[in-house]
Amino acid sequence: MDKKRLEQLLEEIQSGKTSVEEGVRALEDLPYKELGYATIDNHRELRNGYPEVIYCQGKTPEQVQGIVKYMMSQGNNILATRAGKEMYRKVREVCNHAHYNELGRTITIINHEPETTESYIAIVAAGTSDLPVVEEAYETALILGNQVEKITDVGVAGLHRLMSKMDRIRGAKVVVVIAGMEGALASVIGGMVDKPVIAVPTSVGYGANFGGLAALLAMLNSCASGVSVVNIDNGFGAAYNASIINKL
Amino acid sequence: MDKKRLEQLLEEIQSGKTSVEEGVRALEDLPYKELGYATIDNHRELRNGYPEVIYCQGKTPEQVQGIVKYMMSQGNNILATRAGKEMYRKVREVCNHAHYNELGRTITIINHEPETTESYIAIVAAGTSDLPVVEEAYETALILGNQVEKITDVGVAGLHRLMSKMDRIRGAKVVVVIAGMEGALASVIGGMVDKPVIAVPTSVGYGANFGGLAALLAMLNSCASGVSVVNIDNGFGAAYNASIINKL
Amino acid sequence: MDKKRLEQLLEEIQSGKTSVEEGVRALEDLPYKELGYATIDNHRELRNGYPEVIYCQGKTPEQVQGIVKYMMSQGNNILATRAGKEMYRKVREVCNHAHYNELGRTITIINHEPETTESYIAIVAAGTSDLPVVEEAYETALILGNQVEKITDVGVAGLHRLMSKMDRIRGAKVVVVIAGMEGALASVIGGMVDKPVIAVPTSVGYGANFGGLAALLAMLNSCASGVSVVNIDNGFGAAYNASIINKL
Amino acid sequence: MDKKRLEQLLEEIQSGKTSVEEGVRALEDLPYKELGYATIDNHRELRNGYPEVIYCQGKTPEQVQGIVKYMMSQGNNILATRAGKEMYRKVREVCNHAHYNELGRTITIINHEPETTESYIAIVAAGTSDLPVVEEAYETALILGNQVEKITDVGVAGLHRLMSKMDRIRGAKVVVVIAGMEGALASVIGGMVDKPVIAVPTSVGYGANFGGLAALLAMLNSCASGVSVVNIDNGFGAAYNASIINKL
Amino acid sequence: MDKKRLEQLLEEIQSGKTSVEEGVRALEDLPYKELGYATIDNHRELRNGYPEVIYCQGKTPEQVQGIVKYMMSQGNNILATRAGKEMYRKVREVCNHAHYNELGRTITIINHEPETTESYIAIVAAGTSDLPVVEEAYETALILGNQVEKITDVGVAGLHRLMSKMDRIRGAKVVVVIAGMEGALASVIGGMVDKPVIAVPTSVGYGANFGGLAALLAMLNSCASGVSVVNIDNGFGAAYNASIINKL
Amino acid sequence: MDKKRLEQLLEEIQSGKTSVEEGVRALEDLPYKELGYATIDNHRELRNGYPEVIYCQGKTPEQVQGIVKYMMSQGNNILATRAGKEMYRKVREVCNHAHYNELGRTITIINHEPETTESYIAIVAAGTSDLPVVEEAYETALILGNQVEKITDVGVAGLHRLMSKMDRIRGAKVVVVIAGMEGALASVIGGMVDKPVIAVPTSVGYGANFGGLAALLAMLNSCASGVSVVNIDNGFGAAYNASIINKL
Amino acid sequence: MDKKRLEQLLEEIQSGKTSVEEGVRALEDLPYKELGYATIDNHRELRNGYPEVIYCQGKTPEQVQGIVKYMMSQGNNILATRAGKEMYRKVREVCNHAHYNELGRTITIINHEPETTESYIAIVAAGTSDLPVVEEAYETALILGNQVEKITDVGVAGLHRLMSKMDRIRGAKVVVVIAGMEGALASVIGGMVDKPVIAVPTSVGYGANFGGLAALLAMLNSCASGVSVVNIDNGFGAAYNASIINKL
Amino acid sequence: MDKKRLEQLLEEIQSGKTSVEEGVRALEDLPYKELGYATIDNHRELRNGYPEVIYCQGKTPEQVQGIVKYMMSQGNNILATRAGKEMYRKVREVCNHAHYNELGRTITIINHEPETTESYIAIVAAGTSDLPVVEEAYETALILGNQVEKITDVGVAGLHRLMSKMDRIRGAKVVVVIAGMEGALASVIGGMVDKPVIAVPTSVGYGANFGGLAALLAMLNSCASGVSVVNIDNGFGAAYNASIINKL
Repeated sequence: MDKKRLEQLLEEIQSGKTSVEEGVRALEDLPYKELGYATIDNHRELRNGYPEVIYCQGKTPEQVQGIVKYMMSQGNNILATRAGKEMYRKVREVCNHAHYNELGRTITIINHEPETTESYIAIVAAGTSDLPVVEEAYETALILGNQVEKITDVGVAGLHRLMSKMDRIRGAKVVVVIAGMEGALASVIGGMVDKPVIAVPTSVGYGANFGGLAALLAMLNSCASGVSVVNIDNGFGAAYNASIINKL
Repeated sequence: MDKKRLEQLLEEIQSGKTSVEEGVRALEDLPYKELGYATIDNHRELRNGYPEVIYCQGKTPEQVQGIVKYMMSQGNNILATRAGKEMYRKVREVCNHAHYNELGRTITIINHEPETTESYIAIVAAGTSDLPVVEEAYETALILGNQVEKITDVGVAGLHRLMSKMDRIRGAKVVVVIAGMEGALASVIGGMVDKPVIAVPTSVGYGANFGGLAALLAMLNSCASGVSVVNIDNGFGAAYNASIINKL
Repeated sequence: MDKKRLEQLLEEIQSGKTSVEEGVRALEDLPYKELGYATIDNHRELRNGYPEVIYCQGKTPEQVQGIVKYMMSQGNNILATRAGKEMYRKVREVCNHAHYNELGRTITIINHEPETTESYIAIVAAGTSDLPVVEEAYETALILGNQVEKITDVGVAGLHRLMSKMDRIRGAKVVVVIAGMEGALASVIGGMVDKPVIAVPTSVGYGANFGGLAALLAMLNSCASGVSVVNIDNGFGAAYNASIINKL
Repeated sequence: MDKKRLEQLLEEIQSGKTSVEEGVRALEDLPYKELGYATIDNHRELRNGYPEVIYCQGKTPEQVQGIVKYMMSQGNNILATRAGKEMYRKVREVCNHAHYNELGRTITIINHEPETTESYIAIVAAGTSDLPVVEEAYETALILGNQVEKITDVGVAGLHRLMSKMDRIRGAKVVVVIAGMEGALASVIGGMVDKPVIAVPTSVGYGANFGGLAALLAMLNSCASGVSVVNIDNGFGAAYNASIINKL
Repeated sequence: MDKKRLEQLLEEIQSGKTSVEEGVRALEDLPYKELGYATIDNHRELRNGYPEVIYCQGKTPEQVQGIVKYMMSQGNNILATRAGKEMYRKVREVCNHAHYNELGRTITIINHEPETTESYIAIVAAGTSDLPVVEEAYETALILGNQVEKITDVGVAGLHRLMSKMDRIRGAKVVVVIAGMEGALASVIGGMVDKPVIAVPTSVGYGANFGGLAALLAMLNSCASGVSVVNIDNGFGAAYNASIINKL
Repeated sequence: MDKKRLEQLLEEIQSGKTSVEEGVRALEDLPYKELGYATIDNHRELRNGYPEVIYCQGKTPEQVQGIVKYMMSQGNNILATRAGKEMYRKVREVCNHAHYNELGRTITIINHEPETTESYIAIVAAGTSDLPVVEEAYETALILGNQVEKITDVGVAGLHRLMSKMDRIRGAKVVVVIAGMEGALASVIGGMVDKPVIAVPTSVGYGANFGGLAALLAMLNSCASGVSVVNIDNGFGAAYNASIINKL
Repeated sequence: MDKKRLEQLLEEIQSGKTSVEEGVRALEDLPYKELGYATIDNHRELRNGYPEVIYCQGKTPEQVQGIVKYMMSQGNNILATRAGKEMYRKVREVCNHAHYNELGRTITIINHEPETTESYIAIVAAGTSDLPVVEEAYETALILGNQVEKITDVGVAGLHRLMSKMDRIRGAKVVVVIAGMEGALASVIGGMVDKPVIAVPTSVGYGANFGGLAALLAMLNSCASGVSVVNIDNGFGAAYNASIINKL
Repeated sequence: MDKKRLEQLLEEIQSGKTSVEEGVRALEDLPYKELGYATIDNHRELRNGYPEVIYCQGKTPEQVQGIVKYMMSQGNNILATRAGKEMYRKVREVCNHAHYNELGRTITIINHEPETTESYIAIVAAGTSDLPVVEEAYETALILGNQVEKITDVGVAGLHRLMSKMDRIRGAKVVVVIAGMEGALASVIGGMVDKPVIAVPTSVGYGANFGGLAALLAMLNSCASGVSVVNIDNGFGAAYNASIINKL
C-alpha cells in the first residue's frame, strides 16, 4: 500500500464510499502488507508459483505430514529438505504423486509445472561423496524453475577432468560449487569464470575437516574474488540463491 | 539466624534457659543455616511451594525413580528435566499422577496447585524445530506458578507474523526468546520491547551452527541492550530466570 | 496507535474533523510509531528521561564529538561507553559539564537529574582487575536512575569476605556479578540469592582464559539456575538489563 | 582456441600456409590461452575496462608503489585495498590523480571513466562502526562501474529506521549487507527482499564477537534463504560479487 | 642398575666370575633398566606391587582379554579402565575373581592385597551425573593402595552441604575434585584447603559445555592457587596423581 | 605429449600421413595429456603399476562395488580405504581375490605383484589403540610396492621400549609416526633420526583430545625440525607420501 | 574455632566470665574464622610466614604501590607477579629492599627469611624462550621457602641432554615441567620419574601453537599418568602447587 | 656404542687393558652416546657441515649475540631465524660477515661453503604477501646446501601463470608450497606432480583466516595425496624437511 493508495482509501472513507469498519480492516495490517512475506518454519514463504519449502530436520514425520497436508490445499508446488525415508512414507499417505530423492533427502511435489529459465545453473562438485548435497541443490533448482547442469567428479587433484568440462561451466549464468575436504575447487573455478560462484562447503573428509569447517574457512578465504559462501552442506540455500540470480 | 536471634540464644544460655549442649547444637551449623539453601543434584533446592527439580541427563532411570520416590514423601511439586520415556515409565511406578511432556522431555508432578502470577511470561520461538526447548521452558514456568503465553513460528525471515503478535509479547512482564540458526529473533524482539529479554540459543540448524554456537554468539553480541543469555537449549534455566523476575 | 485510536482517527476523517492530509501524515509512520523506538548507533534509543547512549569503539573522537553535539540539543542525559581520553577531550570542547570515569572509560553528561529507584542493584566483583567493567556498569546504572551498591574484592578463593557482604547482596532487587578467570563467583552467588543474577565474564586472566572465553563458558554452564549472562566485559549491557528489572 | 580454430590451423599446416614451427608455437600454450586469465597478487586480473586490483596488506609501501607504477603504463583504472596512509603517499609520488578514501583505506586511480550500470547495488549497514567496510565496498563498486546506494545506521534494534529505507533497498538489483555484532541485519533484510543478498560480517563488537566470528556464523546460519556470505570485513569481495551480479 | 651394581658387575667380569657374554646380556639393556619403566599400551608399567593398567578404549574385548591373560601370569594386581560390559565378560572367562564397577567402567583384579596408606585421598564431586568419573577415580585409588573418602553431591549452588563436609575434606592429604558444568567446585575447595587439589573436569552439562571444555577452562583459570588439572573425565589420572602425592 | 611428439605429429599432418581429423582427435586433449593425471574420486589416479585408490567414506556399498567392477577391467591393483565390512561383502561379489584388513578397514586387490623397493618405510606407533591407522598405512605402503617395518607399542611414557627398536627405525629411508593422545612420539623420534618423519595424529584419547586435535597441534608444533604432518587418522596419506619419498 | 573452643566460650557466657556482647562479637564471624582465609585480589591470602601475593596484570602501577604499602605494615614477605618495570619503580619508592626479576617479571620483598625445605623442587624447561615462566616459578618457589633446582635447555629433540640431568630431576620431591611448542617434555619426564609432575604449557612457538593451546592440550593428553597441568605461562601456580606438595 | 664395541670394551676390562674405573665412565653415559644428538634451543643440533640453528623468537638480542659468539668458536655455518633488525645489529658486533635477509628475518653466517646438491628444491608461493616465509625457507635451504628454485606469484586464481612454470616445478626432487588465504595451491600442485610436496600455510589473509588456520586446515585436508604439512609460517621447517629429502 503506497502513499497514493492510502490517500485514495482515506478519500473513500471521507466520502463514505468505504465504511470505517472496512477502513480499519484495510489499515490494521498495513505494516504487514508492506512487508509482504510470510514464513513456513524457517524458509520464507515463496510467492507466485514458487514452491512451499519445509525444512524437516528436528521435525517429526507426523509434523511434516501435517504441514504437507495443509499445503496441498493451496495448490502450490512443495519442496521438503532433510527428509528421512519415514517422512516420505508419511507424506505419501497424503499425496501419492510425491517424489523422493533418497540421496538428496528431498521430497518434491509438483502440482503445476514451473516455468523454466533459458539460462542454466551449473552445479559442480568434486567427488561422489558430495553427491547428497549436489542432489539437494539439484532438486531445489529444478522445482524453482531453473535449467540445471550437473558436473561432478571434477576435483582439483585431477585438473584435466575439470578443464574438459570448463565450457559447460562457463556457459552457465551462475555456478554452484560443492566441495568438501579443502574446498579448493571454489577458488579454482572462481579464477576461471566471470559469473557469480556460490560455494557450498560439505562435511565430507578426514579428521581435521571438523565437520566441514576446513572447507568453509577455505571458501571464505578464497583468493578468487567472485565467490560467496553458504552454510556447510546447505545445497538448498545455494540453489535458492542461484535461482534468484538466474532469474534476474 | 540473624544477630537478634543470636543475642536471644546467648541470653537464654546465660540465664540457663538453654543448656550449653543445646547451644552448641544450634550454633554448630550457624554458617550453614545462614546460607539457607540445599541442593538436589545441580539445581539449588527451591523453597516454600517451589518444585523440587531433577536434572535427569547422566542419571539412570533407576536413580531418577529413587529421587522422585524420596521427594514424594515431602509433598512438594516435582519437575524433572531431560527425562527420557523410560525414566517416565519408572517414575509412573512410584507416582501415577506424574505427567510427561514428550516433546519437552519433562516430567511434572503436581502435589498441590501452585499459586499463579497475574503478570505473564511470554515464550517466543522461531520455528517448530525449537519446540522441544519451548516445551521445557513452558513446563518449568507453569510449575513455578507463572502465567505463560507461548508465541511460536515467528522467525525473523517473516517479520509480519512476528509483528502481528507483538502486542502479546509487549504485554508480558518478561520475555523468553528461543531461537536456533542465527538467533536474530532475540535482537529483533530486544529492540521492540522494554522488558527483560532472556535469550535461549538452540542447537537447531545446518553445519556451521556448531551445535548452537552460532546462535549463542549472536545472542551474546546482540545489539539490543536488554538481552541476557542462558546456555544452549536451556529452556529450564530461561524459565527459572523469568519466573524470578516475574515474581519481583 | 491501537485499534481504538485508529477508529477514532478514521471517524474524524469521515466527519471532516481531520483532513485527509493530516490523516496521511498520521498514518504514514504507523508501522514505525507502533515499533516506537529509534536507534543511536547500536543501542536502542531510550525514551523519556533515559540517557542517549553512544558506543564509542570503532568511532573517531570527531564522530563522538559530533554525536554528542547533536544530542546536547535535545536536553537528554548522555552516556558514552568505551570512550578513550582523547574522546573525552573532544567532548569537553562541546560540553564542559561532561564527566569522565577513566577506569570505566565512560563519559556521562547529566542535563537533568534522573529519578532514582528505592530498590538497588548490587554490582559484585572478584578482584581489582575487574574494576574497569565494574565502573562501566556502575556509571550506566547510575545514569539510568538506579541506586547501586558496589561490592568488590570478594573472589571465591576467599569465601569469608564474600560471606561478610552477603546481606548487602541479598538486599538488592537484582545482582550483577562481574568476574574473570574461572567466573565461579556467579555460581556461588547464584546459589545464595533468590534474585535475578546477571553475570558478566571479564577478559581478565592467564593464558587459557582466551580473552574471557573461560569465564563466559563457566557462567553459561552455571549450576545455579537463576543466572543469565551478557557478553564479555559488557558492563553496560549488564547494568542496562539490571535497570529494566530494577524498575519493574 | 576452440575446435573450429584448431581444424583451421591444422588445415593451414597441411596446406603449408602455416609452418610446423609456427604451429608448434601456437599449440604450445593451448592450455593457457584457453584459461585466459592472469593474476595480480591474489586478485584475478580483470579484463576490458575492469580496474587492476592490489591487495596491500602484507606488502610494503614500496612494493605497492612499484606495482602501481607498472600498472599505470597499461592505462587501466586501479584499485588498491587495505592501503595505509603511507602507501597512499608513495602512490601519489607516481600518480598525482590517485584518490584516497581514508575510512575505507582504498586508493583509486581513474584513468578512464568506467561505464556505469542503470541498476544499482544497495550497500546497507548497521552502525557507524561498520563504515570502514562500507567505504571499501563503495569504492570497489564505483570503480567497477556500478551505481550504488549507501544506506547506513539501520541496525535491527531500531527496525523503524530500516523500514523507512526499505524501498530503496528493494529497488536494488543486488544488496550488500554489512553488519558486526550479531549480524542479524542480513537475516532481516534477507527476509524482506527477493534479490540476492551478499552479507559481510564485520569485526566490530564486544568480547565474544571473537573478531567477527559471531557475525560470520550468524550470517552463514541465516534463516533467510537468499543470503550468501563473504569473509569478515571483506567489503571488496562483497562489492566485486555484487558487481558481477549487477551486470548480468 | 645403579653405579654400585655396575662396578660390581665389571669387577665380576674382571675376575672372571661373570663371562663376557653374560656381561653383554646384562649391559645391553642398561639404558632401559636405568629408566626402569615399561609400558602396557599408554600407561607406564607400574613397579613392585603396583597394578598393571589397561586403557580399554579403542581396544577390542578380545585384545583386552589377551592382555589380562598375559598379565595374570605375572601375579600383579590389574586395573582396566574404560571397560565395557562385553570386555568384562571376556575377562571373566580368563579370571573369575575379576570385579566390575559398572558405573566407573573399571575391571579390577586383586591378586594380592595392596598395602594401604594411613593418610587418605578425598574424592569430592558435585552431582550424581559425575559419579562415573568418581568411581573410576575411586577404584584406581583403592587398587593403588590408598585410603579414600568419597564426598559427593556437594555442588557450589548449595554451599551449606559442602561446608558440612569440609572437615572430612580438610583431613585428606590430597583432594581430587570432580565437577562438570562450570567446574566452580575446584576453585571453592581450592580456596578452603591447604592441600594439593587435583581437578577433573567432566563432560556433564548442557550445550555450551562443549564436552567438558567449559569446566576444563574454568579449572585451568581457577583463582585458587593450589589447583592443578587433568584431562576431561580422567578419573584414573587424577587418582594416580593423588596416589603419588599421598605416598610421598 | 612433449614438444618432440608434437613436431612429429604436425609433420605427419603436413605430409598427409595423418589426417586432419586424426590430428584434431590427438590434439583435443593435449592440455590433459600434458597434465597426465586423472582422478578416481578424491585420490589422484596413479600411473603405471600404481594401484587405483577408492576412498569409501560417504559412498554406498553399491557405489564401491560399481567402481571396483569398472576398475577390474583395467587390470590394475586396487586399494579401497575406509571400507566397512558390508562394502567388502559387495566387492567380493565382483572380485573373489579381494583381501580385507578388518582393523585397517582396507580392501586390497592384487592383479599383478608390485615391484618392491629395497629400502623400507618404518611405521612406528605408540599403542594398540592406534593400530587401525597403522594397518591402513601398512596396506597402502605394501600395495604401492614398498618394504615396510611395523614397530608398535613404543609410547614415550616407556622410552626403553622405543630405544630398543631405534636401530630398526633409523635403518628406514623414511619414517611414519602414528600417535594419539599428546603425539609426543613424533618429536622424540624426530629428534633421533635424520630421515624424513611423517607424523599422523590419531583421534585416540580422553576428552580434551578433541578428536585428534591435541595430537595434531602437538605434531605441527614439534620442536624436532624434520617432521611434517598429515591429517588426523590419515594412514593412507602418510604411507602415500612415504612411498613417494622411499622411491626417490 | 573448633567445637571445644565453642563449648568453652558458651560456658564462659553461662558463667558470666564473658558478656553477651563479647559473645556476639566472637560468634558473628564464626563462619569466616572457620574458613580461615582472606584474599588479596585473586590469590588466596597465605598464612604464617607465607608471602602475600599480588597479581599485577590489569592493575595500575599506583594500585600495586598502594597494595605493597599496606602489606609492608604487616611484616610479611611479599611476591608480586606479572609486574612491569614501571611497577617495580613505584614499589621501590615505598620499599627500597624490593628485588626485581626482570625476566620473570616478579617483585619479591623479603621481610624475614623463610624457613627452607630439605627436599627440593626441580624446575625443568626446554628452551631459553621458556625462561620467563621458569623465573616466575623459581621466585615463587624460593619465597615460599623451598629449595629449588633449575634444569633448563633440555628439550626432547635432544634427549641426551635431558638424560644427563635425569638424576637431578629424579632426586626432587616434585617436578615442575615448563614447555612450549608441542609440550612433549612433560610426557617424557612423566614417564621417567615416579614423583608428581606439574606441567606448565607456555605460549612460546610458531603459528598453530595458538598462544600455548598446543602445549596445553598435549600436556592434558599426556600418556604419562603422573602429570597434572596448570594454566598457560602460569609459573606462579605451578610453583605454588609444588610448594604445597614439597611441604607435605 | 654398538654391541661389538661393547664386547670389545668388556674384553679389555677382562684382560685388564681397561680399568674398572674407566669402564664405569665409558658405560655410565651409554644411553646418551647412543642417542648421539645435542640441541641448541629447540632445533636439534645438526652434524658435520650442517649449520647451527638459532630460533630467535622469545630471545633477547643479547642472548642471540651470546649464542652466536659461542658458536663462532666452532667454525660451523650459522642460521638464525625470526631475527629482528636489532638482533642482526648485535650479531654484527661479533661477526662482521653475517648476512641479513630482512624480508625473511634470517641471519646467515657462512664459515665454509656448504657442498651443494645437484637436484633442486622448488619453493612455490602464491603472492607477494607470502614472501617473508618464502625467504625464510630459501635461506634455510641454501645454507643446508641445496640448489633452490623460487617460483612466486602463481596463485590458483590465475592458473595459467602456474601452468607456465609447471615444468620447473616438476623438475624438482621435492616441492615446498607456501600459501595463505585458502591454501588451495598445495592441492593443485599436489595433483600435478609426483614428488613429495611440503605445504606451509601462511598467516596472510582477511578475517576468517584466523592467523593461518584456514590455510592450515585446507592443506591438511588436501585431496591430493602427496602433501604433508608443517606449522603456519614455518618456512624453516619446510626447507629443513625438503633438504633431508633432497639429499636422500
